[in-house]
Amino acid sequence: MIQKLIHKIQETESPIVVGLDPMLDYIPGQILKKSFEEFGETLDGAAEAIWQFNRAILDEIYDLVPAVKPQIAMYEQFGISGLAAFSKTVDYAKEKGLIVIGDIKRGDIGSTSAAYATAHLGSVRVGTHNYRPFCEDFATVNPYLGTDGVQPFIQVCKEQDKGIFVLVKTSNPSSGEFQDRVADGKPIYEWVADKVEEWGSETMDGEYSNVGAVVGATYPEMGRKLREVMPHAYILVPGYGAQGGKGADLVPFFRKDGLGAIVNSSRGIIAAYKEEKYSSYGEENFAGASRAAVLAMKEDIFRALHGK
Amino acid sequence: MIQKLIHKIQETESPIVVGLDPMLDYIPGQILKKSFEEFGETLDGAAEAIWQFNRAILDEIYDLVPAVKPQIAMYEQFGISGLAAFSKTVDYAKEKGLIVIGDIKRGDIGSTSAAYATAHLGSVRVGTHNYRPFCEDFATVNPYLGTDGVQPFIQVCKEQDKGIFVLVKTSNPSSGEFQDRVADGKPIYEWVADKVEEWGSETMDGEYSNVGAVVGATYPEMGRKLREVMPHAYILVPGYGAQGGKGADLVPFFRKDGLGAIVNSSRGIIAAYKEEKYSSYGEENFAGASRAAVLAMKEDIFRALHGK
Repeated sequence: MIQKLIHKIQETESPIVVGLDPMLDYIPGQILKKSFEEFGETLDGAAEAIWQFNRAILDEIYDLVPAVKPQIAMYEQFGISGLAAFSKTVDYAKEKGLIVIGDIKRGDIGSTSAAYATAHLGSVRVGTHNYRPFCEDFATVNPYLGTDGVQPFIQVCKEQDKGIFVLVKTSNPSSGEFQDRVADGKPIYEWVADKVEEWGSETMDGEYSNVGAVVGATYPEMGRKLREVMPHAYILVPGYGAQGGKGADLVPFFRKDGLGAIVNSSRGIIAAYKEEKYSSYGEENFAGASRAAVLAMKEDIFRALHGK
Repeated sequence: MIQKLIHKIQETESPIVVGLDPMLDYIPGQILKKSFEEFGETLDGAAEAIWQFNRAILDEIYDLVPAVKPQIAMYEQFGISGLAAFSKTVDYAKEKGLIVIGDIKRGDIGSTSAAYATAHLGSVRVGTHNYRPFCEDFATVNPYLGTDGVQPFIQVCKEQDKGIFVLVKTSNPSSGEFQDRVADGKPIYEWVADKVEEWGSETMDGEYSNVGAVVGATYPEMGRKLREVMPHAYILVPGYGAQGGKGADLVPFFRKDGLGAIVNSSRGIIAAYKEEKYSSYGEENFAGASRAAVLAMKEDIFRALHGK
């Protein structure tokens, strides 16, 4: 699976993933109005608005980027209706040829982690039939429970040619509280990084493994070190844009050949029309503003990587 | 909320939570047959079987225990249909007067954690209306992202009188890979435990806080230490029964007054009818076997705590 992602990154010349993390207040009035007219001010109405918002953005950006990353929490907060919108979004993105990274941050033990892996990357057996409940291509995974929590995902990755990104060093301000604690000579995030390499050795796909890592753009020095410690792991980098990361901060996450990392932006793309510099697009053409924001991000990263 | 749980524990004289973690192969043939006849061998059919299985067990045990703990992964693996069965199970358990601990192990940052907290413990606003998407009483939370990931849950706990249990030391064999690493003089799980006390100080409810901790029954010595380190945290103890923990192992998790901990058993209760010692109940009366298993567990814990 990681080779499919790399191929798409090369094809689009964009090491970019667009985070589909819709909040109701990102959604333009005309979409909310129409959805509420049809379904009322209900969870179904909210879910319809989210779906229409996502679809319009996907239609505008699918040719520019290799992948999208829907954040399931933003859908889960609208209950079953919201999760149905998540599922529709995943399916539609795949129809448009995009790779889908489910930002689910799941992680449990044994049969429970296996159930999450099944839900998002695998297939479940009911009687004599198999079903694919959500069917993302990659999922993000929380490592706190150790190998027991991650191995069931790796098993499904092997069987189904899928991939995961394990949280190593997250982009948020308090990520250091536990992740940065130094134990036996190195911080916990490096111990996790060592395991990412070990876990990945079972699922090599070309020179990278199907076990990648999440490392926040907000910590470029740690990114540099982690790029070395995990030579076979693709790095998913959140924290660009709204969280404060800039193009120049991203260089350490990449290898010299321009591969090895993929950078996420969510609000900066999907709510671009709300920013001063894209205000000329207006609410009606919010998706056009998203397209312009992707192009600007692509340019920013290209300049940073190629020093131009 | 923690006082409501304590009150129910005292009322039932059972510091026990029943884990509703249904696997299709736990479900008796007659329920599967009926569900598949009605809905086919589909995700809806599987979800119906799970719901009927849960309902029968809830009807048999609701007067014996204070709480149940549905493990959402086991529902999520059947997609939207499975999550609808989760929701029905939560609602029905509450109707029967049980407290519901959503075993969701979510955790993210900022607005994303806030969305999870909203989904499971809070209410979401759509236009001028508010909805409660899943509406558990407690949720389990993963601490790897630090305070940023937990604070949004605590905010909702304060607003809605709900509670959380933070993963401190999990019951699985590899939990030590990161949790036991010693940093600055103590293991990571103790650093997490310190934070549990700190976070809990904002949500005191009697002598306990609404921020509890998960500590596995399989590590009784660590349980003893953690009971001291977190004097205001109720401890949710998984790992009893199928995972190897016994009544005697549980003593260190409790205070001398018999409070301070609640012990989970899942498979040992819900799939009791498959065990040799409950085989006389048969598939037809699987829920009766569950009731007997709860009574046996109650007795085992009572003996351990009271040395009789």
